[in-house]
Amino acid sequence: MNSKQSSRRLFLKSAALAGLAVGAEASASAQGVTDASAPGAQPGTHAHGQPARLAAPAGRAVTKTITHTTYYTPLADSVGIITPASLHFMQSHSRLPDIDPEKYSFIIHGLVERPLAFNMDDLKRLPSVSKIAFLECLGNTGPRRHSSEGKNATPVTVQYTHGIMSCNEWGGVPLSVLLKEVGVKKEASWVVAEGGDGSKYSYCVPLTKAMDDCMVAYLQNGEPLRQEQGFPARLFVPGFGANHSVKWLRRLMITDEPYMTWDQSVHHAASRVDLGNKSRWFNFVWPPKSVITRPSAGLKLNAPGYYEITGLAWSGWGKVRKVDVSVDGGKSWKEAKLQDPILPMAHTRFNFDWTWNGEETVIMSRCTDDQGEVQPTLAELNRNWGRGEKDRLEPISNTHYWNAIQPWKIAK
Amino acid sequence: MNSKQSSRRLFLKSAALAGLAVGAEASASAQGVTDASAPGAQPGTHAHGQPARLAAPAGRAVTKTITHTTYYTPLADSVGIITPASLHFMQSHSRLPDIDPEKYSFIIHGLVERPLAFNMDDLKRLPSVSKIAFLECLGNTGPRRHSSEGKNATPVTVQYTHGIMSCNEWGGVPLSVLLKEVGVKKEASWVVAEGGDGSKYSYCVPLTKAMDDCMVAYLQNGEPLRQEQGFPARLFVPGFGANHSVKWLRRLMITDEPYMTWDQSVHHAASRVDLGNKSRWFNFVWPPKSVITRPSAGLKLNAPGYYEITGLAWSGWGKVRKVDVSVDGGKSWKEAKLQDPILPMAHTRFNFDWTWNGEETVIMSRCTDDQGEVQPTLAELNRNWGRGEKDRLEPISNTHYWNAIQPWKIAK
Repeated sequence: MNSKQSSRRLFLKSAALAGLAVGAEASASAQGVTDASAPGAQPGTHAHGQPARLAAPAGRAVTKTITHTTYYTPLADSVGIITPASLHFMQSHSRLPDIDPEKYSFIIHGLVERPLAFNMDDLKRLPSVSKIAFLECLGNTGPRRHSSEGKNATPVTVQYTHGIMSCNEWGGVPLSVLLKEVGVKKEASWVVAEGGDGSKYSYCVPLTKAMDDCMVAYLQNGEPLRQEQGFPARLFVPGFGANHSVKWLRRLMITDEPYMTWDQSVHHAASRVDLGNKSRWFNFVWPPKSVITRPSAGLKLNAPGYYEITGLAWSGWGKVRKVDVSVDGGKSWKEAKLQDPILPMAHTRFNFDWTWNGEETVIMSRCTDDQGEVQPTLAELNRNWGRGEKDRLEPISNTHYWNAIQPWKIAK
Repeated sequence: MNSKQSSRRLFLKSAALAGLAVGAEASASAQGVTDASAPGAQPGTHAHGQPARLAAPAGRAVTKTITHTTYYTPLADSVGIITPASLHFMQSHSRLPDIDPEKYSFIIHGLVERPLAFNMDDLKRLPSVSKIAFLECLGNTGPRRHSSEGKNATPVTVQYTHGIMSCNEWGGVPLSVLLKEVGVKKEASWVVAEGGDGSKYSYCVPLTKAMDDCMVAYLQNGEPLRQEQGFPARLFVPGFGANHSVKWLRRLMITDEPYMTWDQSVHHAASRVDLGNKSRWFNFVWPPKSVITRPSAGLKLNAPGYYEITGLAWSGWGKVRKVDVSVDGGKSWKEAKLQDPILPMAHTRFNFDWTWNGEETVIMSRCTDDQGEVQPTLAELNRNWGRGEKDRLEPISNTHYWNAIQPWKIAK
């Protein structure tokens, strides 16, 4: 808390705060009451555990295309790093399976000594692990989501630009434990995961990663997975694009080569313009990224004065080392405060004290991870991918793992 | 994951696992599907974010007396450390206020330079902090909850013995920031917090603690507080009995002496039998404690073989240093594995590999915190409090901060 002390003078200068009247006691006490004594339900209000009647945000922002239904996590009001399960993003490509956990099992087969099936009782009996980690769709923050042009454009808010991303505590069985059970053969090098949805959504993961820190997850923030998150069990691959974390896990096939699954090779391979649109096949790890969640697009500042800038930073490679913030459109940068806990492959919250002088400006953040990798500007990102500035403005469907610095304009 | 390797042989010996049939593929794929394409709701199933139709536990265990309604957190199935907001414990003594956040404010007054009121806009504008921390009712695990005797006895499960306890990520404004705003006078030494419920539930906290790591919280796991948790804002006092974390915060009065609030002095002062029942007034910090959540009372083991013992450990004084587990009724102890993250004043998950030989035995865990404090046996706890073994078996209403080692009998 000591780091907050220097900000005190700033608050006192703030017109909005200094002008607060004493004696608001009456308004605070003259509120209604509801009956908490009824087990389960409160007449006319809510059941135990439901969100408060007047709590915002509802958070149910959604977009739909013929092939995608996407729910976006509301990031603008967040303070910490945990996303409630009910507000976790979802992108579905087909109907959700409605699986009875009593009848559920998945198999591990292929290049193994003993192919085995595992049901929920097996999973709960085996050694468990939990991990607070982000999950981010590889299409999060794609260029189409930046655009406010066109009749089908989604509104530009941080929920739509960065909200296909959440951070939860995932619990389950280390995949390495299961792979040791079946006895992986020497020539094996890849794991192909297949989901139990109608599309048999499939993705493959290198065996080295599978043995390192993946899990078969059945718990999310301490409760059973939500149906949208793969109930009763899913693969969880920390740090990689969320598409690797196959939901409603149906089988794991061990192979000696990467598997050209439909989604991974056709839809999710990014092309390089400068290489004649040849695909850069198989992207895995989310590079360092950050975004200011408040103030952000769509949030209005009422008056000049003190504001806390806050946001999230993360890297699929490991921990966040530092976050720089610019409040002058990138001319100068200052280091933000990182808030505990700083966990590998998890969201890290950063905070930055700012006094707004009332003039139009642009604010932005830049993440550096513990590998020394730095989040690029849009120009740097385009250069890296062999794209010109013009390409960026067109809807390129295969632009994934987009981690450019996100500027927010603060209007007068 | 390396620590798991040594367990491999144990699993292979397990009859239940080794007997698993290959070819369960058919049963996994022959599951129903539901429609995810409808925004918000899925016909006949659920809205986005609701628990899966067949997910257990419902977790709505509750007890009621004339003065208390208590909802217990289901701990038996937990794996990580985060409690979903909907399953957070609640104990209410009066009706829940139904407060409009637009009209809400609380005041800080008393021994201050500038008494001020703060509304939700002020709180969101001020510097924020978040903390993953446990909250435990000072009456959790009281002797009455151990008892299975009497016609009104609650069932003995870990949910009822230890479930008035949860661990969440709390977000809000550091109390020190607010106290610096109002300018605390030199002679001040205590903070009296009053809630906006019908009973004006009040508790006092030393000013040193208030300036150290307390917050006025408005977020819980990234979303607005639940109504049962004090929506729209509550005090949060890490490590102390949850009763200090006054909900629906209405005012903070700064004083130069402790304040004899009704609940704190009449109901929550523990008496010492050996001192003529003189009260040991003002308990604050939860001492080191732990409990095995699986297997625990009410969970049946199907067959001899490998089981992972898992549980939670915590200390209001700081971090957990180690957890010892005994599987022979306390004759011998072995150190459990602690799972990351290990955070101060938060639940820490421990795991322990165990091969059950099928014989009746007693399992238990013992927490040591980073101050070197060790969780006591029941006999040691009674000695510390000047109680005989007989007293412990009687329903002593003022037995609080109960942290004795919890034995679970494993029946044949």
